[in-house]
Amino acid sequence: MALRSKKDYVKSLQDGREVWVLGQKVPDITTHTLTKIAVEHCANTFDLQQDAKERDLFTVVENGEPISRYYAFPQTSDDLEKRRQLIDRHTEIGRGQLNLTKAIGSDGLMAATVTAHQVKTRGGSDVYSKRLEEYVRHVKKHDLAVVTAMTDVKGDRGKRPHEQADPDMYVRIVERRKDGVVVRGAKAHTSASLAGNDILALPTRAMTEKDADYAVAFSIPANTKGLKLIMRPMPPHDVSAWDNPISAKNLEGESVTVFDDVFVPNERLFLAGEWQAAGLLAQSFANFHRFTGVSYRPTIGDLLIGATQLVAEHNGVAKAPHIRDKVARLIKYTEMIRACAIAAARYPHTEPPGIAMPNVVYTNIGKHHFADSFYEAVRVMHDVAGGLVTTVPMEVDWNHPEIGPYLKKYLAGNAAVPAEHRVRLMHFIRDLTASDFGGYTMVGTIHGEGPQAAQNIALMADYDINRCVGLVKKAMGI
Amino acid sequence: MALRSKKDYVKSLQDGREVWVLGQKVPDITTHTLTKIAVEHCANTFDLQQDAKERDLFTVVENGEPISRYYAFPQTSDDLEKRRQLIDRHTEIGRGQLNLTKAIGSDGLMAATVTAHQVKTRGGSDVYSKRLEEYVRHVKKHDLAVVTAMTDVKGDRGKRPHEQADPDMYVRIVERRKDGVVVRGAKAHTSASLAGNDILALPTRAMTEKDADYAVAFSIPANTKGLKLIMRPMPPHDVSAWDNPISAKNLEGESVTVFDDVFVPNERLFLAGEWQAAGLLAQSFANFHRFTGVSYRPTIGDLLIGATQLVAEHNGVAKAPHIRDKVARLIKYTEMIRACAIAAARYPHTEPPGIAMPNVVYTNIGKHHFADSFYEAVRVMHDVAGGLVTTVPMEVDWNHPEIGPYLKKYLAGNAAVPAEHRVRLMHFIRDLTASDFGGYTMVGTIHGEGPQAAQNIALMADYDINRCVGLVKKAMGI
Amino acid sequence: MALRSKKDYVKSLQDGREVWVLGQKVPDITTHTLTKIAVEHCANTFDLQQDAKERDLFTVVENGEPISRYYAFPQTSDDLEKRRQLIDRHTEIGRGQLNLTKAIGSDGLMAATVTAHQVKTRGGSDVYSKRLEEYVRHVKKHDLAVVTAMTDVKGDRGKRPHEQADPDMYVRIVERRKDGVVVRGAKAHTSASLAGNDILALPTRAMTEKDADYAVAFSIPANTKGLKLIMRPMPPHDVSAWDNPISAKNLEGESVTVFDDVFVPNERLFLAGEWQAAGLLAQSFANFHRFTGVSYRPTIGDLLIGATQLVAEHNGVAKAPHIRDKVARLIKYTEMIRACAIAAARYPHTEPPGIAMPNVVYTNIGKHHFADSFYEAVRVMHDVAGGLVTTVPMEVDWNHPEIGPYLKKYLAGNAAVPAEHRVRLMHFIRDLTASDFGGYTMVGTIHGEGPQAAQNIALMADYDINRCVGLVKKAMGI
Amino acid sequence: MALRSKKDYVKSLQDGREVWVLGQKVPDITTHTLTKIAVEHCANTFDLQQDAKERDLFTVVENGEPISRYYAFPQTSDDLEKRRQLIDRHTEIGRGQLNLTKAIGSDGLMAATVTAHQVKTRGGSDVYSKRLEEYVRHVKKHDLAVVTAMTDVKGDRGKRPHEQADPDMYVRIVERRKDGVVVRGAKAHTSASLAGNDILALPTRAMTEKDADYAVAFSIPANTKGLKLIMRPMPPHDVSAWDNPISAKNLEGESVTVFDDVFVPNERLFLAGEWQAAGLLAQSFANFHRFTGVSYRPTIGDLLIGATQLVAEHNGVAKAPHIRDKVARLIKYTEMIRACAIAAARYPHTEPPGIAMPNVVYTNIGKHHFADSFYEAVRVMHDVAGGLVTTVPMEVDWNHPEIGPYLKKYLAGNAAVPAEHRVRLMHFIRDLTASDFGGYTMVGTIHGEGPQAAQNIALMADYDINRCVGLVKKAMGI
Repeated sequence: MALRSKKDYVKSLQDGREVWVLGQKVPDITTHTLTKIAVEHCANTFDLQQDAKERDLFTVVENGEPISRYYAFPQTSDDLEKRRQLIDRHTEIGRGQLNLTKAIGSDGLMAATVTAHQVKTRGGSDVYSKRLEEYVRHVKKHDLAVVTAMTDVKGDRGKRPHEQADPDMYVRIVERRKDGVVVRGAKAHTSASLAGNDILALPTRAMTEKDADYAVAFSIPANTKGLKLIMRPMPPHDVSAWDNPISAKNLEGESVTVFDDVFVPNERLFLAGEWQAAGLLAQSFANFHRFTGVSYRPTIGDLLIGATQLVAEHNGVAKAPHIRDKVARLIKYTEMIRACAIAAARYPHTEPPGIAMPNVVYTNIGKHHFADSFYEAVRVMHDVAGGLVTTVPMEVDWNHPEIGPYLKKYLAGNAAVPAEHRVRLMHFIRDLTASDFGGYTMVGTIHGEGPQAAQNIALMADYDINRCVGLVKKAMGI
Repeated sequence: MALRSKKDYVKSLQDGREVWVLGQKVPDITTHTLTKIAVEHCANTFDLQQDAKERDLFTVVENGEPISRYYAFPQTSDDLEKRRQLIDRHTEIGRGQLNLTKAIGSDGLMAATVTAHQVKTRGGSDVYSKRLEEYVRHVKKHDLAVVTAMTDVKGDRGKRPHEQADPDMYVRIVERRKDGVVVRGAKAHTSASLAGNDILALPTRAMTEKDADYAVAFSIPANTKGLKLIMRPMPPHDVSAWDNPISAKNLEGESVTVFDDVFVPNERLFLAGEWQAAGLLAQSFANFHRFTGVSYRPTIGDLLIGATQLVAEHNGVAKAPHIRDKVARLIKYTEMIRACAIAAARYPHTEPPGIAMPNVVYTNIGKHHFADSFYEAVRVMHDVAGGLVTTVPMEVDWNHPEIGPYLKKYLAGNAAVPAEHRVRLMHFIRDLTASDFGGYTMVGTIHGEGPQAAQNIALMADYDINRCVGLVKKAMGI
Repeated sequence: MALRSKKDYVKSLQDGREVWVLGQKVPDITTHTLTKIAVEHCANTFDLQQDAKERDLFTVVENGEPISRYYAFPQTSDDLEKRRQLIDRHTEIGRGQLNLTKAIGSDGLMAATVTAHQVKTRGGSDVYSKRLEEYVRHVKKHDLAVVTAMTDVKGDRGKRPHEQADPDMYVRIVERRKDGVVVRGAKAHTSASLAGNDILALPTRAMTEKDADYAVAFSIPANTKGLKLIMRPMPPHDVSAWDNPISAKNLEGESVTVFDDVFVPNERLFLAGEWQAAGLLAQSFANFHRFTGVSYRPTIGDLLIGATQLVAEHNGVAKAPHIRDKVARLIKYTEMIRACAIAAARYPHTEPPGIAMPNVVYTNIGKHHFADSFYEAVRVMHDVAGGLVTTVPMEVDWNHPEIGPYLKKYLAGNAAVPAEHRVRLMHFIRDLTASDFGGYTMVGTIHGEGPQAAQNIALMADYDINRCVGLVKKAMGI
Repeated sequence: MALRSKKDYVKSLQDGREVWVLGQKVPDITTHTLTKIAVEHCANTFDLQQDAKERDLFTVVENGEPISRYYAFPQTSDDLEKRRQLIDRHTEIGRGQLNLTKAIGSDGLMAATVTAHQVKTRGGSDVYSKRLEEYVRHVKKHDLAVVTAMTDVKGDRGKRPHEQADPDMYVRIVERRKDGVVVRGAKAHTSASLAGNDILALPTRAMTEKDADYAVAFSIPANTKGLKLIMRPMPPHDVSAWDNPISAKNLEGESVTVFDDVFVPNERLFLAGEWQAAGLLAQSFANFHRFTGVSYRPTIGDLLIGATQLVAEHNGVAKAPHIRDKVARLIKYTEMIRACAIAAARYPHTEPPGIAMPNVVYTNIGKHHFADSFYEAVRVMHDVAGGLVTTVPMEVDWNHPEIGPYLKKYLAGNAAVPAEHRVRLMHFIRDLTASDFGGYTMVGTIHGEGPQAAQNIALMADYDINRCVGLVKKAMGI
């Protein structure tokens, strides 16, 4: 078997999985109004893999068979740079939103592989390592969409897993059987879960010995019994694409993911009690996934740049020096992220068994930067665009026989631009950044791939401060 | 006649005005789902005026009769400080949104009065001055809710009114009659227009001689023939108050306001061709209204402070030093605005015929500051709150018999706080700042009361830079 | 006796005090090259008190006698506002540097008075209260220049006074006698100590019972035996005023102040073991003194505004919009501080026995702000000024017969401005902000009146967060 | 001939050049107190070229001969990355200050080469191209230290060269002879000019036809008749290295460079009237040189990181979370520059005749960033270090028999660190950032390699905004 078609993929999601939206159980996610958008968005991967123009970027040939480049783990700096380009391009095609299915899944699989290898070299079993090799082969062969569920619901943030009043606040093993384990718990905001074939669950933090049952990693099909995806449509998706050009087409398909005593067979179990390894797994995933973050966020910046330039043209002020300075600020914001991603790919650490891990310093400062300055970037765009961004009339007004003509007359700007384009651009800006969808995006820049405090911790753990201290001492002569 | 009751006020809005929402003509704005919220929000003024606890702040006695304090134009620093306190308190009661009706109307009336006085002292007629005196008496006597329509739709920003391809892009006099004038044009985003009894229209900028027909100011009842209010509900207001605690109750009632050949009788005409005075009128209004801005914005800051502190408690991290530093940043953000408002009231300029105009420097830097740093303040709150802000389940999920129990179990945080409170607080934060409503608020911090460029211009026009240059020269001895 | 003349004051400093500069013991600080500048700077107070134009601001009449306004403790909001104006004006006259002698001394005396009163009302002795009354009378009567020594050298910041390896790292009582105590220790960076008649020492922090000997406050003449002032000239002051227009005239006269077993007589002892009161004394002083800070810092901002405007004129770019925006940023920076000072004076707390303490919130955010953004303000000025700021030739080059002509020819800018003025303005900017003196000023914005962490602590201790939390709960309906 | 020794180089500077310092003509710059430091600093290149450990980075083999890597113009991305590493390492060895001689000279030579090639391909003469090839061979062969003089003194910034009141405000050809030209004018702040063998002069801006005589580029020995270097020591360099660990050793040797009717022979003339090419030459140099900027600035950041970490250790607070966050901010500041440099090397533009020009976008945003945030980075370090940075006693006090013991006792911090180390670290911080030298460094971050406005212009000229606009249009479906 080889690369799947879009049709095969969509069909594979009609598998009886338990998905809830707005209090309704969805019988078929590929056809339901509130879920089909996420399916459609995620399905583009399968078209792109076959597309003559995109194929070289989206696939590689391994053992004579084409596979998704997402699953070809990078071994060199150049491989990482290609992965960055893949993610950048994929996000561009997705109107600023990466289809995360294979991306986040492969981030998780790389982290699990690195960790399993370390378990082995530290004298532990090689069973996880072998299972992962086998599973990755299976994923490639069947061209599966894998997603990763990482963030536990956590309960009281001041307490460790085993200290919680309710022991289920982190996913844990509640029963060990000969053929596998039973797990219970819930993961919060699992990205793209709706559209995954398999869900890879990883521990969210370092563990102590008493937390051993929480040190669990595994991958299971989305239709596994007891697995419930409680999704939140953002926003309700029965909206006009005229008013909501982005959110009518982009939907992440994120969920609260409940493991209600779910059975995991041994061959899909990749960590089961080795608490010493949980921290490495969490950290490695964070780093691989932050590289995905710094690779796809620049495209959102591209949209801010483009919309700001265009709205300035519509308003007739594109050549004003202060407008050009504002556009330059947006370019700087965006390309600083891209520069970090390029630098992260340029100087990787190679982790056994041979995976090129993106440079921790550049990955983490890139992520920190885009979270730190995204709101400000949005503010710059809003400043240029004007108050109409959120007082712009809707399609139903614009096309109304009685009031439409007034709006068409009075909301014209620069005569060279059709009034409707101007008004729809205002909606584009609103929908992207000053709406339910925009709020989701903004909060996502901070908390997606982990909050800024986590980046600082990763940075300080990795950075060679002693080199800097040494330079000072040498310059002082002490 | 004296202060009206809420009932009288609501009844006065059932006056046949032409209001459009989502393509529908609203027969009675006081009962329609999409408009009654704005009516309810604005009606609180009339209750507060009668409330024993609030009366002293909301009213003053003039000639033996109580009138709204909004219409008692400040004559001293202390009067201004009282006005600031009134606005601050009124916003607090309004959950972060000032009922603008009388506030923005009185800002406009003060500006018109100052301008009419100047027209007179510069050798022009005293007719506008007398009409305004009479009109203000009328407003006080009937306790009217007056709003101000200022921002024209503007067309091509690079051209003056008379240069536009369509001559109607700024409101203008199209016919002069013995008993009044006929005006045509449209104003964009007129705040609280839905709930005003009268609409006061002012020119939006300085004019040249060729723009004389655009130098027009007047006040007319909202049900005047030819006046059309095309409103945009933000967001659609048939929503759950559990999910949307703020936006289900707060609605500004803002509109595109079309003057479709509207007749204005002479006694309500306050400028009609004196193009030299248009700039003063626009600038004065901007300054009075920015003082309103710096007086009400701190309360939105108070909500950010309170929500951030509370969510930190819910998450169990309120005592962490970095959390306290973040709360301190929000306090600084908020109280810097308040300090500017206090300083603006402390050092007013008295403008003939005796109106204390808030200090231009402090008013404008206060407004500039809250626009400059609001997005960043929101970011700080989102950082503390966590990703759940925009992935939080909705009421229909929370109370669902099948999936509700999972959510109640897994979304608990600090055991001392009911899980439902935590989840609803997430909705509060989301609704206030990461939603359609939040987008409206954010953009409003920039463009409400004029964009930042306008504050810089006002600041540079007013500031005594020569004093500073003189200090430098003296210190240099040249 | 009444207000002293400058001559009397200068003479009073020839009192045998032990002052060290650059390894030399200074026999007479009023004549020595490296110290007389500080003396001259501080002496201006005595001229100003007599100056017909300044007298009303610099003095008040108490019991029929004129005294320095610095020593008339404010009792009302208006008194505080006058004090703010006094400090602002005094700094303006001092070319951006406040003569701190009486200002910081009175900040200390107010704090000691409030604390002594609290010791009394909490059931302690009234002796300190009475001594302070008497001492303040003495200060007023003899028109003394009093300075405050507060910051101990502190040793290991992680340890309390009694825990230090060397017990002398905080000033302490080493012997108690019938007629007084003997103290030992050292205070770091004591502002204006060189030019004070008396030095008031206060504890630098809250104390525990074991630190009781460190809870000591007193005032002694600067020539007391055992008192050593080790001063650091910043920069060496034998410089050309052409090259260094500010630092050739301004010198703070700050020192490491060593108390080498100094005897303090009972009548000058204001705290001697009441460890519970040390924290209040330190906090009160901090707050009074931060108000002094927010009152004098705006004048430094005025110099940045003036120099930036002037250099833009010299370079011929003053009307460019981006330059005007930069000047506006400096105005905003500066006037935000002033607004905080005005607001702090407007809403004081009255502390027994009747001293109006500046509002803690506005005082602390004002201080935090000027520290936070001063470097950025300097950067804006440097950006406008150009690279010549630090490559500008010196007087010796400019007036050189052989190379001077080249410099005069080639360093001309805008033809309307003499080349020498342009070059000297560059020196002004350099001397103020890009030099040894500038470095001292920059670091002083952060650490003068305490580091920013201290402001956050004071802010969080005083701010009524519950009010904000209450607003949120009310809006949520919980 | 091949690589020179340090001794040869120093000797080559004893060539009769006309250097002025503090009004004195310097007979031998290699021995004069105020200039020998710059010579010493620049001479390190010649040692490093021979150093077994550094040789591979500092040299390349060309035609069987080792030459300085600075003069091996990069042809590929990897060559550029090596150049970046060379500059980074060279700066590290120079205690934060790059020895600019060969670096800035080769930046200029590459720009001249690219420009000469364009003159040729646009139908002009190939004479400049040939002369440059010949000259570069000569530079390599004799291992010359070449510097670039670019910034003209400019006079009135609002006027073009030919419009100036004095026609000499930009360097120009005043006479054309058969064997060469005579030039007149002056260049401001020429970096490292003191220590160059040859000085390469380039036009500072684009020219119009009337400015043709100002379109002149050439290289001449520093001892050419009529060439005068008026240097400004920063600070005066007869200082204690204990007090001034950096500035006692680092001196840029920058000058006002006067061309007093200097003869340039044809073979060293690289542009002489082709005004259309002046802009390209200026822009190309700016870009090559900004890459040098983004390559050496990170090392200054390394010093900030190291000093902040070390001072936190000395103060005993290195593990406090808020301190670690501050160090993380400095790392982010620094490594963002490095990331831009790496990205600029990764994606070069190849300019005919085959020189890899660093990516314009990444080069310019990197430069913009380090200028934008350097002052803030310094502020962070000062915040952590404490007030002692600028009140720290000097060597003469510290080692004084009478007062030294008090200082040694009282200025101890963390007991694990010698008090002297703590005090000297304060001097290190002061000298680097809060002193005359620090002021020079700060202003240099803004104006070195051109002010930020110039980066924005370069960025906007190069950036493909249409790509971004296209993405928006596609997403909107228009």
